[in-house]
Amino acid sequence: MPNPSPQLLLLSSSTTHGRPFLGHALEAVTEWLAGRKRLLFAPFAQRDHDHYVDVVQDAVNPLGVRVEGLHTAADPVGAVREAEALFVGGGNSFRLLSELRGRGLVAAIRDAVLTGTPYMGASAGTNMACPSLRTTNDMPIVRPPSFEAIGLVPFQINPHYLDPDPGSTHMGETRERRITEFLEENDVPVLGLREEAWLRVRGAHAELAGFSAARLFDRGAEPREFAPGADLSFLLRSEPRFDLP
Amino acid sequence: MPNPSPQLLLLSSSTTHGRPFLGHALEAVTEWLAGRKRLLFAPFAQRDHDHYVDVVQDAVNPLGVRVEGLHTAADPVGAVREAEALFVGGGNSFRLLSELRGRGLVAAIRDAVLTGTPYMGASAGTNMACPSLRTTNDMPIVRPPSFEAIGLVPFQINPHYLDPDPGSTHMGETRERRITEFLEENDVPVLGLREEAWLRVRGAHAELAGFSAARLFDRGAEPREFAPGADLSFLLRSEPRFDLP
Repeated sequence: MPNPSPQLLLLSSSTTHGRPFLGHALEAVTEWLAGRKRLLFAPFAQRDHDHYVDVVQDAVNPLGVRVEGLHTAADPVGAVREAEALFVGGGNSFRLLSELRGRGLVAAIRDAVLTGTPYMGASAGTNMACPSLRTTNDMPIVRPPSFEAIGLVPFQINPHYLDPDPGSTHMGETRERRITEFLEENDVPVLGLREEAWLRVRGAHAELAGFSAARLFDRGAEPREFAPGADLSFLLRSEPRFDLP
Repeated sequence: MPNPSPQLLLLSSSTTHGRPFLGHALEAVTEWLAGRKRLLFAPFAQRDHDHYVDVVQDAVNPLGVRVEGLHTAADPVGAVREAEALFVGGGNSFRLLSELRGRGLVAAIRDAVLTGTPYMGASAGTNMACPSLRTTNDMPIVRPPSFEAIGLVPFQINPHYLDPDPGSTHMGETRERRITEFLEENDVPVLGLREEAWLRVRGAHAELAGFSAARLFDRGAEPREFAPGADLSFLLRSEPRFDLP
């Protein structure tokens, strides 16, 4: 990593079954915010930006945090530069990346985060922290000018990672099959983050946290399971071997 | 449609639960072939082309049909031009479209089919018959130079269409939610083809067939269900309103 101190909180999902938005991870969000009281939120993965800001504001009200929507900034790049903390929310990853690129925000966010601005992602926002969009689950409803994402970590994450359902009669590819196809074309580790899991990165240290194990896929190796609390710092030393964009 | 007589067989999937490859649709394949004994097969959606040709050959052995792999043709465009019938198989749609484009086959297949060569698609191969890749379920493991597909029909199909599971605790988007996101960005009808269903197009006539109903999504309208046997010719008169690529 070019900078020793990125502060990342990468959630598999913003919502888990039976809990409100961010409800499963509020303690982790509090710790990640480290007392900051303003949160700049990128709502671009969903269509209704204002509504999405309201959802996030409701979620962090108990923490006394004020949310600002990045879509309302007259100068989005400047807003990112001055942010106390950044949150990129989930929705459709293709739409999100297109909107970020259209506003010049991919490089702006990378620069801000690698010089210390805390970054939180959920689902599509976690995808954005990877080198590429290529391990998203989303439908390619629009075509971004590049699949290259923000690249805050040097490996891929698959959010909402889902184990095969042994009772299913559906013949569509399992998630593991899809990731195997990814590894046929790209030599980059993929961390399958189940919905209640997240990754906490502090500088050169990465720890799996939350309430689910995660599954790591790498070319030519059997998938490996890691339990919450596992030290995944070795992933920060990955050297992604694929052509971008 | 520019030509009155395309002959299309668009399968949701090549395999259904508990049956061999193409087993559920052999009668429809026989009718579609109309006595032709050579089938040119595009295996590019999967990694192992030779193996994939063997799978298809085994499936159509009972019909006395000889399968040729398009990947072995010294002149792929010429092979398409001279084909008796074309089959584009399933796998990863992003890989498939990249490989077709890299070989100059998108326009070649369009030209052949619109002047009478029968086309069969399954899953990713059915996606290719639409104007765009944008309603695939697949992971974007590679980035095609365009999302524009072959465009044999003027609407989109979502293969392996899957109803929401009311017992699920998974929070990833349902298929219906993903298609709704597509319709937020693109004004084009989307036919959700469940796995045992297919679409048979003969010139200006399109009929739903197989053993499952299909679900049609259109911007600003409630989704509609159609049973096997339904006349869907009206979809061939759609005017897709989205920007390509």
